[in-house]
Amino acid sequence: MLIVVLLAMASSVVLASDPSPLQYFCVADKASPELIILTGYFMFPLLVNGFVCKNPMDVNAEDFFFSGLNMPGNTNKRLGSNVTAVDVKKTAGLNTLGISLARIDFAPYGLNPPHTHPRATVVLTVIEGSLLVGFVTSNPQNRLIFKVLNAGDVFVFPEGLIHFQFNRGHKNAVAIAGLSSQKPGVITVTNAVFESNPKIDESVLAKAFQVDKKVIDYISPEPVMDGQ
Amino acid sequence: MLIVVLLAMASSVVLASDPSPLQYFCVADKASPELIILTGYFMFPLLVNGFVCKNPMDVNAEDFFFSGLNMPGNTNKRLGSNVTAVDVKKTAGLNTLGISLARIDFAPYGLNPPHTHPRATVVLTVIEGSLLVGFVTSNPQNRLIFKVLNAGDVFVFPEGLIHFQFNRGHKNAVAIAGLSSQKPGVITVTNAVFESNPKIDESVLAKAFQVDKKVIDYISPEPVMDGQ
Amino acid sequence: MLIVVLLAMASSVVLASDPSPLQYFCVADKASPELIILTGYFMFPLLVNGFVCKNPMDVNAEDFFFSGLNMPGNTNKRLGSNVTAVDVKKTAGLNTLGISLARIDFAPYGLNPPHTHPRATVVLTVIEGSLLVGFVTSNPQNRLIFKVLNAGDVFVFPEGLIHFQFNRGHKNAVAIAGLSSQKPGVITVTNAVFESNPKIDESVLAKAFQVDKKVIDYISPEPVMDGQ
Amino acid sequence: MLIVVLLAMASSVVLASDPSPLQYFCVADKASPELIILTGYFMFPLLVNGFVCKNPMDVNAEDFFFSGLNMPGNTNKRLGSNVTAVDVKKTAGLNTLGISLARIDFAPYGLNPPHTHPRATVVLTVIEGSLLVGFVTSNPQNRLIFKVLNAGDVFVFPEGLIHFQFNRGHKNAVAIAGLSSQKPGVITVTNAVFESNPKIDESVLAKAFQVDKKVIDYISPEPVMDGQ
Amino acid sequence: MLIVVLLAMASSVVLASDPSPLQYFCVADKASPELIILTGYFMFPLLVNGFVCKNPMDVNAEDFFFSGLNMPGNTNKRLGSNVTAVDVKKTAGLNTLGISLARIDFAPYGLNPPHTHPRATVVLTVIEGSLLVGFVTSNPQNRLIFKVLNAGDVFVFPEGLIHFQFNRGHKNAVAIAGLSSQKPGVITVTNAVFESNPKIDESVLAKAFQVDKKVIDYISPEPVMDGQ
Amino acid sequence: MLIVVLLAMASSVVLASDPSPLQYFCVADKASPELIILTGYFMFPLLVNGFVCKNPMDVNAEDFFFSGLNMPGNTNKRLGSNVTAVDVKKTAGLNTLGISLARIDFAPYGLNPPHTHPRATVVLTVIEGSLLVGFVTSNPQNRLIFKVLNAGDVFVFPEGLIHFQFNRGHKNAVAIAGLSSQKPGVITVTNAVFESNPKIDESVLAKAFQVDKKVIDYISPEPVMDGQ
Repeated sequence: MLIVVLLAMASSVVLASDPSPLQYFCVADKASPELIILTGYFMFPLLVNGFVCKNPMDVNAEDFFFSGLNMPGNTNKRLGSNVTAVDVKKTAGLNTLGISLARIDFAPYGLNPPHTHPRATVVLTVIEGSLLVGFVTSNPQNRLIFKVLNAGDVFVFPEGLIHFQFNRGHKNAVAIAGLSSQKPGVITVTNAVFESNPKIDESVLAKAFQVDKKVIDYISPEPVMDGQ
Repeated sequence: MLIVVLLAMASSVVLASDPSPLQYFCVADKASPELIILTGYFMFPLLVNGFVCKNPMDVNAEDFFFSGLNMPGNTNKRLGSNVTAVDVKKTAGLNTLGISLARIDFAPYGLNPPHTHPRATVVLTVIEGSLLVGFVTSNPQNRLIFKVLNAGDVFVFPEGLIHFQFNRGHKNAVAIAGLSSQKPGVITVTNAVFESNPKIDESVLAKAFQVDKKVIDYISPEPVMDGQ
Repeated sequence: MLIVVLLAMASSVVLASDPSPLQYFCVADKASPELIILTGYFMFPLLVNGFVCKNPMDVNAEDFFFSGLNMPGNTNKRLGSNVTAVDVKKTAGLNTLGISLARIDFAPYGLNPPHTHPRATVVLTVIEGSLLVGFVTSNPQNRLIFKVLNAGDVFVFPEGLIHFQFNRGHKNAVAIAGLSSQKPGVITVTNAVFESNPKIDESVLAKAFQVDKKVIDYISPEPVMDGQ
Repeated sequence: MLIVVLLAMASSVVLASDPSPLQYFCVADKASPELIILTGYFMFPLLVNGFVCKNPMDVNAEDFFFSGLNMPGNTNKRLGSNVTAVDVKKTAGLNTLGISLARIDFAPYGLNPPHTHPRATVVLTVIEGSLLVGFVTSNPQNRLIFKVLNAGDVFVFPEGLIHFQFNRGHKNAVAIAGLSSQKPGVITVTNAVFESNPKIDESVLAKAFQVDKKVIDYISPEPVMDGQ
Repeated sequence: MLIVVLLAMASSVVLASDPSPLQYFCVADKASPELIILTGYFMFPLLVNGFVCKNPMDVNAEDFFFSGLNMPGNTNKRLGSNVTAVDVKKTAGLNTLGISLARIDFAPYGLNPPHTHPRATVVLTVIEGSLLVGFVTSNPQNRLIFKVLNAGDVFVFPEGLIHFQFNRGHKNAVAIAGLSSQKPGVITVTNAVFESNPKIDESVLAKAFQVDKKVIDYISPEPVMDGQ
Repeated sequence: MLIVVLLAMASSVVLASDPSPLQYFCVADKASPELIILTGYFMFPLLVNGFVCKNPMDVNAEDFFFSGLNMPGNTNKRLGSNVTAVDVKKTAGLNTLGISLARIDFAPYGLNPPHTHPRATVVLTVIEGSLLVGFVTSNPQNRLIFKVLNAGDVFVFPEGLIHFQFNRGHKNAVAIAGLSSQKPGVITVTNAVFESNPKIDESVLAKAFQVDKKVIDYISPEPVMDGQ
């Protein structure tokens, strides 16, 4: 035997794209070990666009199940909010199906800061407390569409637009959200612009925000410790 | 002037398809009057695939808003369940965005009977009470994938498969669901097979269910009064 | 070396999704051995959304070919009908191309029972004999759209709707159908609702059909032996 | 009243795109009069991507029906072949559903000449007679994949590739084909290259085919009279 | 006659979605007057997802043409850059075809500031001068992928990610870009976050950027005058 | 151990389809060795619909980069033109993103001969020189839409239609084009119809072009040596 191959599949291995699944479900195969290819001295994972499917005969109810969305998330963080996502990583049966759920907890004055989901619209309903929410439309209008939501209220944040949710009250707030992707992705503006790795050239940011470089320094003095 | 045309747009007028909207949102224009075309003696509505968009300049926060999802639905019906859908008909801002929410209320022993959503996967979380839920896979296996859910539990019902939720307990149950379409559509098996208008030929049903025509008569003696 | 990996690819291995193939064809590679991953003590097939492609250089006319659609299918079955599908399993060249053909044979009084194809519209033309055909629209109208077809007649069964074809005459009937998927999938209502494995709880079915549990027992006394 | 508007809808008016219809069907509204907009002195039809939908309440079985596919087409033409298409123009119920049927008749030595359907794969089965069929793969291989088909044989012509069917025998031949679009479109090579209106500059064609301009003249001396 | 209707079509009227056009082209009908519906006292435009198609018989070469992409854009603006887009608004023939071009001019030290195109990937090639370009990946890595480009260099900015181009030199720079949508849309971070209308609550921004409200005031003291 | 498997991935291995990537980018993994499966005596590559993704952690700016589009291509060929494509094979970061660029060089009287891209619309801008360009619409009109382009002019060639570009002048010409696919594919009419391998039966071509077989012989006397 000259060459031996080890295939171990990373939990992030992806093969299927979103639209038009070719079977009723294609449960992500999280039980599989990391798929690594050893060829002589090289070793690398097989990563593709979507997750591989678990053998339909081995699929069971647990693959479509998640437990604990009634439990508060930990909001003891810099921004006072926490997102518990029930996406394809948590519930493998969501693979290829174009939807996920999330619970968002807010401490008093907790903020889910300005961010976008380029692959998902969010529809959110407030379960408890009150939230100031909003999104901003694209150039050139840049209109802020905002609303204060109370329990039972529902709000839509269209795919690709920058949006936020802010708990202005002194009590906790809780929301449940549906997202139109099993793997929505998140781009938080502050993280992307001021806390990238490496950082964006200060000249670029100073010019973009039309401020002195010192202000850019002040906003972004050191790496992030936690965050959304 | 020989011909005068009246265009009044039905609130169900649809122009946009699901994938790849060409703007960030296309709020369904529910405020527009019915669009009717009068040509001489004829008059007809303009119906297409999706809803027309409201002028973006006239869009406001109300278009993305719905209120009252914390209110119990009326379960005093034949099957003891009620679905409150927050879809494009209720929240015009969902137009083209591929997602909706729903609240499902169950009286004790209430049933959301076997049905399919050909355009949507459902992800449901139990807010209160307990539910027996399940879906059946396609031919030839026809496996029943089922689970008893309690508060905080989440379950996935893949697009196109027949599924149900049943409250086996003597208390009310409540669930919140995300659906992967702004206009999911529902085909309830009993309605489609036994209560269509007109009814399917008894010979067909007797042969399909491999029973005597009397049984078909027994199951389907008269038109439905309410239902999902 | 601690771990050795065996990759053998199941003939049902699927990698490509329906829309927008990236080459002109992607012939399903049915000649490949089962792809199995042996990691220590575990062994499992690699299943994804669609079929892998045969090397384009090895593709030949046989991959796009099927023979025998002029041969009557065996209708000596419980329901007196037989479907001969020319789909991606039979003709590998259909992979990713979104279409398949089928021949349906009906013995006298043969029935293709109420069923749906969640991934395909059917367009059927009668070659011989006569058929009562119909489909039922969704909630809340549940209209039955039906027609008696004779040789040369064509009828459309829209994707996702429950439909049937019934040979009411005492002669054989034959139809040729085009389906808008290379792998349409079938959900037969009686199989899914009364003959699932395990069976759906009788309480659910009795309530859904608004009949006594004895009727459910009568309809579904034992497992199916054959069927569509 | 300064301006009067006349809306009359052309039978070719199109509003819906192919993927993901938002209702189960969207029957093309062929009964509607031409939709024309008169604004002052201007008058123009409203043409969009797909057909408008007939009111679902007015839809009936005739919308999903076509009759006469058992009738031979007229092959008394220059190339000795005839295509009878059952597409959205013939059967309005096919609108948005992504499939159509066709019957192709061939006189002895009749030819369906090299052409492409950029929006559809063809799956064809021979009902009667014998056909030489083939398609050519793309650059740089340009492989001809061909086969002689007899009754009951099926062949696939992948979307976008140039293909032909030729009756080499002295008897008639008949085929039934499924196409993966309700409106496939046809580009016949000879029509597009040698018979366009106006004609392509002879210098271009002479250089492309690496022949003298006289040969181009010889091939394309005058406008086409009939053809596919 | 009680009601008279005026239909005048806005040049921004949109009917077709991106994927799978149903004809080879669907030229946006810019020549049509505004489509306005007058019903008694109300008057509103018809806006949908995409543009209506010009009558194919009236289409000519001008519909697929744009002139002047060799002319420098005006960079005498706050940020020293200018984008000349050849999109569906400029070249109506691009309607439904999923692509557009752009020329970007940079004065010395000119910046195309951090922004996203949620519906388009950009592929850019430098024609003249030198540019520092980059994009930032999503949470949680937020990696900055950057490069200095010179004439003849090409760089890809994936759909949905925040990116920028900066002319660090003292000479002009010019780039030509392809974008994967006929109507890409732009969200400039500074405009959306600091210059929306109305402005986002300072408490939200101060918390998001983890700075004092005075810094937010400093960055965003007054409305924008020009910009990208 | 009876069977040993070697997986080495061909650089043309394809896994992802065009629409809706599930991450922001999925860089084609060109660095991976050929993926070959050895099962006993058989050995074959794994080919699927799209390319596998490089590990996101290993992605760097080079993956999104191409250099040299300012360099003239070699036009010393039969037709006097040369296409330099910056597609997914050249720039791996284009994988799944639906766009590519190309530079086309024309010697005096150079021709990019009649061809189609079944998966891409082309938008071309002339950088230098002058070009006669055109495309032909589908049956039955077969209209030639043409234009003479000079520097700074832009023209659109809709997906699937036969088109050409011809340098009628005695100076070189250069164009830059955007294409709406990362892997557009090319079918050149003369190659497909007269130079396929094996050749199309002369009877078919003589009948299609309505000429004597000698003319077909004259046009296609021997295999192609170079070409587009």
